[in-house]
Amino acid sequence: MYAPIPPDPAAPSVRVNLYSDTQTRPTRAMRAAMLDAEVGDEQLSLDPTVNALCARVAVLLGKEAAMFLPSGAMCNSVAILTHCRPGDEIIAHETAHIIEAEGGAPWALAGARVLGLSGPRGMFTVDDLRSVLRSPSRYSAPQTLLAIEQTSNLGGGAVWALDTLHSLAAVARDHGMATHMDGARLMNAVVASGIKASDFTAGFDTVWIDFTKGLGAPLGAVLAGSADMIGRAWRWKQRLGGSLRQAGICAAGCLYALDHHVDRLAEDHANAKRLAEGLSRIPGLTVETPETNLVYADVAASGRDPAGWADALRAQGIMVSVMGRTRLRLCTHLDITRADIDETIMAFAAIRAIWL
Amino acid sequence: MYAPIPPDPAAPSVRVNLYSDTQTRPTRAMRAAMLDAEVGDEQLSLDPTVNALCARVAVLLGKEAAMFLPSGAMCNSVAILTHCRPGDEIIAHETAHIIEAEGGAPWALAGARVLGLSGPRGMFTVDDLRSVLRSPSRYSAPQTLLAIEQTSNLGGGAVWALDTLHSLAAVARDHGMATHMDGARLMNAVVASGIKASDFTAGFDTVWIDFTKGLGAPLGAVLAGSADMIGRAWRWKQRLGGSLRQAGICAAGCLYALDHHVDRLAEDHANAKRLAEGLSRIPGLTVETPETNLVYADVAASGRDPAGWADALRAQGIMVSVMGRTRLRLCTHLDITRADIDETIMAFAAIRAIWL
Amino acid sequence: MYAPIPPDPAAPSVRVNLYSDTQTRPTRAMRAAMLDAEVGDEQLSLDPTVNALCARVAVLLGKEAAMFLPSGAMCNSVAILTHCRPGDEIIAHETAHIIEAEGGAPWALAGARVLGLSGPRGMFTVDDLRSVLRSPSRYSAPQTLLAIEQTSNLGGGAVWALDTLHSLAAVARDHGMATHMDGARLMNAVVASGIKASDFTAGFDTVWIDFTKGLGAPLGAVLAGSADMIGRAWRWKQRLGGSLRQAGICAAGCLYALDHHVDRLAEDHANAKRLAEGLSRIPGLTVETPETNLVYADVAASGRDPAGWADALRAQGIMVSVMGRTRLRLCTHLDITRADIDETIMAFAAIRAIWL
Amino acid sequence: MYAPIPPDPAAPSVRVNLYSDTQTRPTRAMRAAMLDAEVGDEQLSLDPTVNALCARVAVLLGKEAAMFLPSGAMCNSVAILTHCRPGDEIIAHETAHIIEAEGGAPWALAGARVLGLSGPRGMFTVDDLRSVLRSPSRYSAPQTLLAIEQTSNLGGGAVWALDTLHSLAAVARDHGMATHMDGARLMNAVVASGIKASDFTAGFDTVWIDFTKGLGAPLGAVLAGSADMIGRAWRWKQRLGGSLRQAGICAAGCLYALDHHVDRLAEDHANAKRLAEGLSRIPGLTVETPETNLVYADVAASGRDPAGWADALRAQGIMVSVMGRTRLRLCTHLDITRADIDETIMAFAAIRAIWL
Repeated sequence: MYAPIPPDPAAPSVRVNLYSDTQTRPTRAMRAAMLDAEVGDEQLSLDPTVNALCARVAVLLGKEAAMFLPSGAMCNSVAILTHCRPGDEIIAHETAHIIEAEGGAPWALAGARVLGLSGPRGMFTVDDLRSVLRSPSRYSAPQTLLAIEQTSNLGGGAVWALDTLHSLAAVARDHGMATHMDGARLMNAVVASGIKASDFTAGFDTVWIDFTKGLGAPLGAVLAGSADMIGRAWRWKQRLGGSLRQAGICAAGCLYALDHHVDRLAEDHANAKRLAEGLSRIPGLTVETPETNLVYADVAASGRDPAGWADALRAQGIMVSVMGRTRLRLCTHLDITRADIDETIMAFAAIRAIWL
Repeated sequence: MYAPIPPDPAAPSVRVNLYSDTQTRPTRAMRAAMLDAEVGDEQLSLDPTVNALCARVAVLLGKEAAMFLPSGAMCNSVAILTHCRPGDEIIAHETAHIIEAEGGAPWALAGARVLGLSGPRGMFTVDDLRSVLRSPSRYSAPQTLLAIEQTSNLGGGAVWALDTLHSLAAVARDHGMATHMDGARLMNAVVASGIKASDFTAGFDTVWIDFTKGLGAPLGAVLAGSADMIGRAWRWKQRLGGSLRQAGICAAGCLYALDHHVDRLAEDHANAKRLAEGLSRIPGLTVETPETNLVYADVAASGRDPAGWADALRAQGIMVSVMGRTRLRLCTHLDITRADIDETIMAFAAIRAIWL
Repeated sequence: MYAPIPPDPAAPSVRVNLYSDTQTRPTRAMRAAMLDAEVGDEQLSLDPTVNALCARVAVLLGKEAAMFLPSGAMCNSVAILTHCRPGDEIIAHETAHIIEAEGGAPWALAGARVLGLSGPRGMFTVDDLRSVLRSPSRYSAPQTLLAIEQTSNLGGGAVWALDTLHSLAAVARDHGMATHMDGARLMNAVVASGIKASDFTAGFDTVWIDFTKGLGAPLGAVLAGSADMIGRAWRWKQRLGGSLRQAGICAAGCLYALDHHVDRLAEDHANAKRLAEGLSRIPGLTVETPETNLVYADVAASGRDPAGWADALRAQGIMVSVMGRTRLRLCTHLDITRADIDETIMAFAAIRAIWL
Repeated sequence: MYAPIPPDPAAPSVRVNLYSDTQTRPTRAMRAAMLDAEVGDEQLSLDPTVNALCARVAVLLGKEAAMFLPSGAMCNSVAILTHCRPGDEIIAHETAHIIEAEGGAPWALAGARVLGLSGPRGMFTVDDLRSVLRSPSRYSAPQTLLAIEQTSNLGGGAVWALDTLHSLAAVARDHGMATHMDGARLMNAVVASGIKASDFTAGFDTVWIDFTKGLGAPLGAVLAGSADMIGRAWRWKQRLGGSLRQAGICAAGCLYALDHHVDRLAEDHANAKRLAEGLSRIPGLTVETPETNLVYADVAASGRDPAGWADALRAQGIMVSVMGRTRLRLCTHLDITRADIDETIMAFAAIRAIWL
């Protein structure tokens, strides 16, 4: 279950914002790039900066074409609406963002069910997938789309292995299903694994990356796929209100992010590891070693619930996210330094000491 | 998973049809009642026999009003469409008919997700329900309907206990949810338990019973609820094409069933028990004692898969249903005699003997 | 606008029911045919009488396959759901039943708009159709289905000419659109014109006929099309709750109607002409000569509104239908004799005399 | 019919862009304001610049609350989805943007029909509205929303009179309908009429203004309504992918526009009048005097079709929009000077001279 609690605006100012990598603020240099962006009417495909961004992302993801959208959630919805018809079934992990965090968009907008598979770290296996595949029948929903989240957010930022992805996509294709990758944090997976983005996305019909998370841009995501697919997707972009005007202002920030903010994700991963190690030494906290930039700390054994921890940290200027009934999520990003990490570890330790 | 395999029409004639209680043929006496039915235009609420049936079922189920519909599946869809808005979440057991056997109608038509809870015998507990309830948020689907199937088909015809039903309904109400009972085989539960139908349905906003299963009518189901609810449901009845003309012909069969085919469900239950006992003595079959008229035999340990068993039985004129990868379902009903039961047990034993 | 007012059940008994041909009661002979029907499980395609009916209607309409449904409205919805995707545009006459009388089903269920063309007698021309065809664009809804109603109900039971139908279908096909015929009263057109049903339906991808109107059966309609189309339509039949059980009871009535109630539609047409002629001689009434069984009388010049006329007639045991703000509809059918027609004309004259 | 033709990117550079006011480029000063914007996470209601913009627009439009969205089309969809349920009917002018230019979003997303009323200048009267209102019935779609476009785009930028708006809203309310104003160019109406925005919007439950048209911002629109309405609308904002991150960058441009680009709309209107006068003196062109910034020239009598005119103008560096089969639209805005107007008039005259 996904229930982020928005921070209280009346609380003391946030010094260390580990709430989410969506909280990154555009840097001065990124803003300058945006200031100078050449722009046009995006809705008519006439914004040169948006066009440049789409061309670049298409190549990065190994697809023929791409479209700019104001958010990653819209990338998911546009893709689902283009792939599916009402009554269809999408197969995803039960913790997938499309199930837990988009207000029910797949069924509200596309009339599609998302069948949630279980499995550790937000992942499932080829056998798990095979076990739910059905022969077509009058009685059951057609299974038409496999959706994978790379990295898995609620799975702790875990990176799907390349061969698992390819095997899952192959099984889906054999079953007549399309394949979609929610690549909100795909670039984290790329940096953590050293595997090229286009290798991860091979075998997936649609894939998108988000520029507002670790990449640090204020707004924008890009959905890529075949030229035919993106052509058909434009109608849904229009219907959802995702056709924009001088969006090059925003696209310029995304291009800047591709130039300057990809490799540095390694720092976020290092900070996340350091944070996890520090927290795991505090009694009552259970913390797995993160693969990327998301640190989940289970506080069930600490004697306090996650909201209690979050409030106590917030009082010290540190913002974290409550995830479900026993977990905190701490997310490293562009605005988090190694010093912030150490301060956070110390704050946890101090709170723990006070409570004892 | 629900994958009934329609019998091959080219196969030898079926002598013992245990495939489903939906296979019951109207008796001569029921047909005669239908022949003499007084009729009118049902769509204008002017069919006197339909009106009499609706009035009688409303009383039976303890509700203010009722509407006639051509099928139980349409009762589910009309209720869901009246209760829910696109994007909503319905909570039901993961084996529920609305998930497994209606072609995805809840999401195809109503844009609603059905969250499937797990649990033995097609049931879940109040704690199971509570564990998935969420506070409202921008990010998650509103939880607006609890749906219960009495008896649980894929749960082996198990009867939900009265206090469980009432507790679940109370928790749902406290959470602001409406409640719906799929009573396709509610009358089986009534006869098996000795509990009145209206006691089972107390606390449920909508409930329907099907006349084409154990009750033996050829066509028809009745959905009951408050007068306001049924009033609003009429629009969906009209939209789904469920507004009929001289439907009194069919309603007369349903009235006949209420008069003559309710108490005799006890025979079906006795036959089911006899069948289960007989089969449980055959090595390789695992059979639970049924509460009502559905007998599930797990053949995983028999060395043959369910389809193999079904084919071998079919060659002897006995039709059963394959349910998933290891189970057969055998369903007793109006057209099944005690002699049929004994013949079936002997056929199983003979097939087993041949295969050894 | 279509606003039938259901008759008051408390009013004196109806002797002459011209309200609608949907009010026909099954004859004793038809009931006897139903009593003896051989039946099976329709949902599994195992009802022999339903299968026989579908085979016969498929031939009658010149299509490969057909399916039985409980109502004509469901035939429209199943066809629309199979042809269209959300966001599509259907082109029909602005008075079409799918716009005016199905509770908004095309947009409620299929997410499709029905663009209503205007034109006399419920009809439009090839030029009218061409004038609204658009090139595909991101900005406008895809135009995917042409829907024709033969005969046109609100057009006064007018019969579309064969060459108009074929020209419209050809233009639609050239534009990439599918074609659908709502043949609720197609058999009236056949009898009135002497043109074969399969000639009218040539060029239409889907077509259905209703058995509950002039044909006099209590329940049932059959949708025909290609085998592929009907195959895909089964999923929507299931989702809408139109999959039935021992529906052969009803199908037997439909088969009886095909044998005994088609040719006799000529009587209804003769009665309608006689009625129109009689009414047209009454000052204040404007009545066009009907082509089939629907008589529309405009009462605007009579000094009373349609509801006033309907009430006065009802007081004399004659039931008619109020259509919009100035018209009455009187519908001849199986239960209306020539004597009823004469009684009705006299009643109109008498009421008129009293009001002067 | 609305079929804007995107300009050919390979054509000679555009010197005078009269295609649409959506083509305005952000000025250097506006960009500078965006560069310095204070930002936060908009999705969590924590972006201070977005919050300031919403507060200011709510006051401007006389509503309790407001939300930022990436486009005006999304404002329409969010409002419609919040007001309507599947099967509902929206009443609007037949030329409304929600019918003609949003890809069918009202029916694709909300399952709602838009009933298009006719009338000159994109407007209809209270009597027109009354003539289509229906009593609720099982047979017809519920009429739940009145939608008005101020100014009317395809009506030539015409301004709805204040008393007409209030009368329409009152009739709608009496009929139990909600009211929505598409205020894409509401500020043009305000400047042209001298009437306050909040006076125009009184009686409307929801209203939005677009910042990407005459106001000259690159991206953004704001939807206003009651606090309850906007609260419920957030779920649809989330579902449609309209929840953003550091959107303050864009909101800063909108705030700048409110400060600097409202009063100057008078220049656009003066330029439009000058353009209309100049063109009306050219034989073969029929041009009505514009009330705001949209000039429609009917070229039916010129011997050339609109596309021919558009191409000839484009060859001279002037871009205009083709609207339907006989009209050109020329739109004045921030980037159009009086000299551009004069150049355009001369170009029309010169083309006309060459063709003679």
